[in-house]
Amino acid sequence: MNIPDLKIPRVVIVGCGFGGLQLAKSLRKARVQIVMFDTNNYHTFQPLLYQVATSGLEPDSIAYPIRKIFKKQKNFLFRWGKVENIIPEKNIVQTTVGELTYDYLVIATGTTTNYFGNADIAQHAMPMKSVIEAINLRSLILQNFEQALLTQSLKEQEALMTFTVVGGGPTGVELAGALCELKKHVLPNDYPELDFRKMRVLLIEGTNTVLQAMSKVNQHRALKYLDELGCEVWLETQVSSYNSEEVVFENGKVLPSKNLIWAAGIKGVTISGLNRDSINNRGRYIVDEYCKIKGCENIYAIGDVASMPTTNFANGHPQVAPVAIQMAQLLAENIQQELRHKPLKKFNYFDKGTMATVGRNRAVTESFNIRFGGFAGWLVWMALHLMLLVGFRNKVVVFINWLWNYINYDRNIRLIIPPYKRK
Amino acid sequence: MNIPDLKIPRVVIVGCGFGGLQLAKSLRKARVQIVMFDTNNYHTFQPLLYQVATSGLEPDSIAYPIRKIFKKQKNFLFRWGKVENIIPEKNIVQTTVGELTYDYLVIATGTTTNYFGNADIAQHAMPMKSVIEAINLRSLILQNFEQALLTQSLKEQEALMTFTVVGGGPTGVELAGALCELKKHVLPNDYPELDFRKMRVLLIEGTNTVLQAMSKVNQHRALKYLDELGCEVWLETQVSSYNSEEVVFENGKVLPSKNLIWAAGIKGVTISGLNRDSINNRGRYIVDEYCKIKGCENIYAIGDVASMPTTNFANGHPQVAPVAIQMAQLLAENIQQELRHKPLKKFNYFDKGTMATVGRNRAVTESFNIRFGGFAGWLVWMALHLMLLVGFRNKVVVFINWLWNYINYDRNIRLIIPPYKRK
Repeated sequence: MNIPDLKIPRVVIVGCGFGGLQLAKSLRKARVQIVMFDTNNYHTFQPLLYQVATSGLEPDSIAYPIRKIFKKQKNFLFRWGKVENIIPEKNIVQTTVGELTYDYLVIATGTTTNYFGNADIAQHAMPMKSVIEAINLRSLILQNFEQALLTQSLKEQEALMTFTVVGGGPTGVELAGALCELKKHVLPNDYPELDFRKMRVLLIEGTNTVLQAMSKVNQHRALKYLDELGCEVWLETQVSSYNSEEVVFENGKVLPSKNLIWAAGIKGVTISGLNRDSINNRGRYIVDEYCKIKGCENIYAIGDVASMPTTNFANGHPQVAPVAIQMAQLLAENIQQELRHKPLKKFNYFDKGTMATVGRNRAVTESFNIRFGGFAGWLVWMALHLMLLVGFRNKVVVFINWLWNYINYDRNIRLIIPPYKRK
Repeated sequence: MNIPDLKIPRVVIVGCGFGGLQLAKSLRKARVQIVMFDTNNYHTFQPLLYQVATSGLEPDSIAYPIRKIFKKQKNFLFRWGKVENIIPEKNIVQTTVGELTYDYLVIATGTTTNYFGNADIAQHAMPMKSVIEAINLRSLILQNFEQALLTQSLKEQEALMTFTVVGGGPTGVELAGALCELKKHVLPNDYPELDFRKMRVLLIEGTNTVLQAMSKVNQHRALKYLDELGCEVWLETQVSSYNSEEVVFENGKVLPSKNLIWAAGIKGVTISGLNRDSINNRGRYIVDEYCKIKGCENIYAIGDVASMPTTNFANGHPQVAPVAIQMAQLLAENIQQELRHKPLKKFNYFDKGTMATVGRNRAVTESFNIRFGGFAGWLVWMALHLMLLVGFRNKVVVFINWLWNYINYDRNIRLIIPPYKRK
């Protein structure tokens, strides 16, 4: 794959999510050769995928070309390809674009949707973990409204207009809230022929509350906001199967719904070649306090795909961007320390807080025991997301879209491109 | 398809290009029921497709949801579907979403790429007539550069970096110019490992000049601009075949090129059911001065798919937006006149001029014998395109992108979404 051998240590990074991106950036002054692989040629700002799925933002404004991010970084090379296997004894990665040796290998592949082995849900539910999945979801939602206009059957029409979101984490809550806003402000203008009292948005959660990671205060706020927006929240309810027409629940209930969005679980994206016992039951690599994978010498994992058991987090840290970014910063420092034969630092998570938005003027954020709700929370949420977005142009375009949508109660990107095709 | 029968005349419009869009708008006060069909749920601003293909604009900023355009128009209904057949004796259209009767039927389906029966070109060349085709072309261009990094063969690398644009009309000229700007300002930053002297952009034209519809002065200007940008213009040259690896020309030359973009011909998109002799050899419906299709009573064609032979235009008017818009305005007026039993007006084309942009500060426009080139032409070109774009948000987003690209010599939307898959 035409990677020059520079006789300096080569750091191979797999994945350009928050972790991989930060690691490569933090190594910009290191005397190493960085080679990054990703199956996309862009970094995805995952926290805003739900706004792409609900017509609020262009896909292009939350994705950023990897080559553009690093165009001034001389020690960085990118190859658009997938790492398929690791041969740790030989320090080799095998990829769809050829083989490469490494001195340091960092796995930052993140997570994918976890259906917990339920094959019919995997086949018929819509995931929302990538730009392409978010675009597909947008197309499906709009296509189902077009379809609702055509049918003579009231039952089918209701099923087409019933949106079942499974999983009460931030993704599920934000998506359900955005769907309620589409119902309230946007779609009735587009489809005056339809009776929007028939449109239902349901949020299904297995435990007894939403936003597990948050304080009781904010959990209640989120439930109140969802209720105000007209979302039906079904707590302590589990989905047992789905056939693209009807959701069957473990309590025996059956709900006709042609839209099931699965935000109920994630699992790490692992690469073959490493010892099975380095991977836990959620597909995360078990790493030590230096992010080094159990049983490996020079292979690391950071971010969502890494699980570092600590006193506070027995099953690993929360799978959020700040953990990935902080692990990347630490690892970049440690790699440089090691090359200088200096002592290494252990990882120590600095928790800046957590947040979720339910709708306009309705968000919950908490940070160092300071909790915001409502309009204040919503402003904090927007400001922090704009700051984290990569690229000035993207910040501007997203800000204009948000301003526009706020003033006009609108969502502009209601395009079926490309049309969603059933699996 | 749940279209209510209102006992007022029903106008069925097929296609929401410039013509169909204008017709429906101009009929907003008419006592008719308008039913529009389109295979997309959005209107496409075709003149800027080449900027989507060359990473300058988001697809979403040149497309606009049809339902949003007409959300306040009470006499308008939209159905997302394809009209597959007309039964003129019964005044029925058969569509992918059901059958419908009409009182007036207006075909505004526009054109598609014409390969003139050359099956291998049709299979391997890239067209650029729709949003999806433009996105595919963007993906192919970027994928070929990723591929160029990987190959050991210099010959293959050159073929991957050789872009052959066929057709010297506005689309071909604008696309070739934009590719040259990518070569000059953008791609070398993304791919410092590649030698960009190897990147070639060729514009192939069968006649002895580009921009046939323009004055000699502006044709020469355009050729000069292309030359300044480093585009190789091959005049009086015709492509005879293409197998995705090599272009073979009629003069026997062979050019290794993995990118062939076909902008050399268009043909009307016709619907089965009407008499064959109402269609000319370029797939355009032959219409009279009222846009009524030859041999029909209440079926009309407007825009690119219509050919109205006149003294000045023996083979029909130029296939440009202003003709479609003016035909639509006339037809809307005539339909209302006819319903009031008043006399009808004949079509009289008011030619406002023509224009094409080659690159930054380099465009040619002409209007009422006033010709602009260079920076002035470029400003006029931008202003007119911004005015014609549908939707205020789109105007703002496009303007910001242009400003950004102008200041930074950049093209931001370099995302491979979704990856292009070879046919």
